[in-house]
Amino acid sequence: MPLDPRTRFGLKLIEIRKTRGWSQERLALESGLARSYLGGVERGQRNIALLNIFKLAEALGVAPSVLLETPVAEQELAP
Amino acid sequence: MPLDPRTRFGLKLIEIRKTRGWSQERLALESGLARSYLGGVERGQRNIALLNIFKLAEALGVAPSVLLETPVAEQELAP
Repeated sequence: MPLDPRTRFGLKLIEIRKTRGWSQERLALESGLARSYLGGVERGQRNIALLNIFKLAEALGVAPSVLLETPVAEQELAP
Repeated sequence: MPLDPRTRFGLKLIEIRKTRGWSQERLALESGLARSYLGGVERGQRNIALLNIFKLAEALGVAPSVLLETPVAEQELAP
């Protein structure tokens, strides 16, 4: 069963953030989003919308579409 | 100057919907989203969030990330 889109997005965001070696605080600073909000996004508790997805992508230096790709964690769960 | 993310998403959605040969009505039926809401999304008036992006992707039979790719219309505007 595929992950909930919010959980999936959170895992992907964590994955890309850690690839950068960034803390949540650093990503909050770079993106202009609140750290508590980012925490909720990473825990899959937020139905994040387009404008904030684009802010995160710009801060992380990736195409916005990359944030909607399947996280490695889910790929590993696949049969 | 890049398009507003909402405008860009709307153009991409129109592009993929027309590739399918679907009307807005058909996409509304397939996705479970209201036609008037879809009209607003396509006109770039809605800050659509993750759960609805995934509903549209599933209805259209594309990976969710495809909906965040650059629309052809914007590629043609690039220098």
